[in-house]
Amino acid sequence: MKTINVTTKTKSYAIKIGTGALSQLGDLVKTVWQPGQVAVVTDTNVHPHYAQPVVTALKAAGFQVHVLTVPAGEQSKSWAQVERLIDQLSRAHFTRSDGVLALGGGVVGDLAGFVAATYMRGIGLIQVPTSLLAQVDSSVGGKTAIDLPTGKNLVGSFYQPDLVVIDPDTLKTLPARMLAEGYGEIVKCAALVGGDFWSLLQPITDVTAILPAAPALIAASVAFKAQIVMADEHEQGQRQLLNFGHTIGHALELLARGRLMHGEAVAIGLVQVSRLFAMHGLAPAELAETIAARLSAVGLPTKLPAIASAEVVAVMHHDKKIHHDALTWVYLDAIGKPKLAPVPVAELPAWVAPLWQLPTEVAGPTDN
Amino acid sequence: MKTINVTTKTKSYAIKIGTGALSQLGDLVKTVWQPGQVAVVTDTNVHPHYAQPVVTALKAAGFQVHVLTVPAGEQSKSWAQVERLIDQLSRAHFTRSDGVLALGGGVVGDLAGFVAATYMRGIGLIQVPTSLLAQVDSSVGGKTAIDLPTGKNLVGSFYQPDLVVIDPDTLKTLPARMLAEGYGEIVKCAALVGGDFWSLLQPITDVTAILPAAPALIAASVAFKAQIVMADEHEQGQRQLLNFGHTIGHALELLARGRLMHGEAVAIGLVQVSRLFAMHGLAPAELAETIAARLSAVGLPTKLPAIASAEVVAVMHHDKKIHHDALTWVYLDAIGKPKLAPVPVAELPAWVAPLWQLPTEVAGPTDN
Repeated sequence: MKTINVTTKTKSYAIKIGTGALSQLGDLVKTVWQPGQVAVVTDTNVHPHYAQPVVTALKAAGFQVHVLTVPAGEQSKSWAQVERLIDQLSRAHFTRSDGVLALGGGVVGDLAGFVAATYMRGIGLIQVPTSLLAQVDSSVGGKTAIDLPTGKNLVGSFYQPDLVVIDPDTLKTLPARMLAEGYGEIVKCAALVGGDFWSLLQPITDVTAILPAAPALIAASVAFKAQIVMADEHEQGQRQLLNFGHTIGHALELLARGRLMHGEAVAIGLVQVSRLFAMHGLAPAELAETIAARLSAVGLPTKLPAIASAEVVAVMHHDKKIHHDALTWVYLDAIGKPKLAPVPVAELPAWVAPLWQLPTEVAGPTDN
Repeated sequence: MKTINVTTKTKSYAIKIGTGALSQLGDLVKTVWQPGQVAVVTDTNVHPHYAQPVVTALKAAGFQVHVLTVPAGEQSKSWAQVERLIDQLSRAHFTRSDGVLALGGGVVGDLAGFVAATYMRGIGLIQVPTSLLAQVDSSVGGKTAIDLPTGKNLVGSFYQPDLVVIDPDTLKTLPARMLAEGYGEIVKCAALVGGDFWSLLQPITDVTAILPAAPALIAASVAFKAQIVMADEHEQGQRQLLNFGHTIGHALELLARGRLMHGEAVAIGLVQVSRLFAMHGLAPAELAETIAARLSAVGLPTKLPAIASAEVVAVMHHDKKIHHDALTWVYLDAIGKPKLAPVPVAELPAWVAPLWQLPTEVAGPTDN
């Protein structure tokens, strides 16, 4: 089993990556928690596959286990679910020596993480991400969140887990579309890092090539994220690089109202931000196509859906990366050479306009 | 103006204490925040007295000010108010470079602090406590919280402010009963520290003596709390001392359903825990009376109300200080000599029983 150690100002913890890790979960959890109560938070998609083995492993290790299941889907990242889960912890007399184990994709990790961060001002948290997106992205970095009507992830906290356990075997039950969206985040990391990591993507010419490569791709992505998070726990400097593709991506994801998954929206964002910076003369023209080729190989979308620029700009006004009336964009000089560019909020409509003024850039409605 | 600096792992900030500090608020805020939006969160009791001067001072210093007012009272420490306030911040396009200024007592500080801690995973926070209790207690230490039906402060986070401004002049509009309850917390701090601080209490023979002594009493309490918080930001060691009187106090406060204010419940808790430990042979017999004399001088209650021990123990099961099935109590060997004593949860009914078995300890229903 591969171990990546993360040390932040508030906590040190290990990320364990290994095929079959789920079957060793009881022993792994025992390395960080003394016997007590564990709330396994999961969703209606993941529960039928993995709840039983996880409960069995935890009970065998001496824990009292409660399984709390939320409806699958982004709509569970809500105040209502936070209240419901915290109410259940309180009624079960959970104390600060008990813990929450998040078993599922990004929604479960974000929601259960926020619950663990705020119940009694913080109790134990273990992340067991089961989707490729959550394994490479949301389980590392200590971000927890729920959504507001005005935007995604607008409420939450930075809260580090005690342990992260990643078992690539859980990807076998993942639909191809979700494998591909997780791969979108891997392409983002590889484009930021360049070198050997970017080379790892060469053999991925089809979505079926992701699964066998997953352990290496996850390890490379997690190692990169861990290094960034250690340098910048609260997203004030270098960590902003991880938002590559997310400025446009987040806005499209929200405006597509469920038609685009997160990794799909980010895929479009990666390519479109690269085009935009090329149009402004700040990035080489061919870079967008280089990135698009990797994404298209697994069927990810790269073209702008039919959404008006005014709508996209309106959503960007709620972006958490706005500081002192400027929105910080991430772009690449070349693969492996990221840069930050703050753009005044007042100039955003003109700044993004080139993307919408070229008719060839505007695709028709898409179900990608 | 007196300045006490607090340095924690996550933030360094100043606590400014001075008569008339409110009139200098604009300049004080400018020392920590660049111009931007400020949400002044206050309640219906404090708003008529201090909202206007605060808004004027902030506007003169170049801030855009929104005033968000919640109903006065503990019932505002609710999910509903958190959602409403965060919704208002989001609709006003607050970003991470904007901030929340809590203007009011402990309820406003706890609620507004939790909002600032979780909106966008944390935005700027300034505490301007206007009640004596908040000035000496809840504004220092970075605790934010809301209540659950199962208990007080069961949801929240540790989140340090950028600045705390304490103006003892705001105490002039405080009802005598609230001055006395704040004094209850001061007695707690003085009993833990002993020495010169305990001597400061000698002249307080009446509630009217609190106001002239307030600047010195606040400074001594805040300096003590700041030193504890610096040593133990997340309440894992020494900070538990601040819970002196709170184990019984919190339970009584909840069970009295509004008849006891926090500082009143703590006053009873301070005396009763000292009696309890004397009964168990762990504390000198006269200590409870020494503490009771200071509290009674300003009209604070010290006797147990007519609440059954079984009810009190049931509430203690939700205490945040339970770790690994033991509840940690704080008691004194002598004034200035605090000790910690973990008691297994299963033994709590027998442990607290002596308090209820002595008929002279059981007072009738009280409106104290």
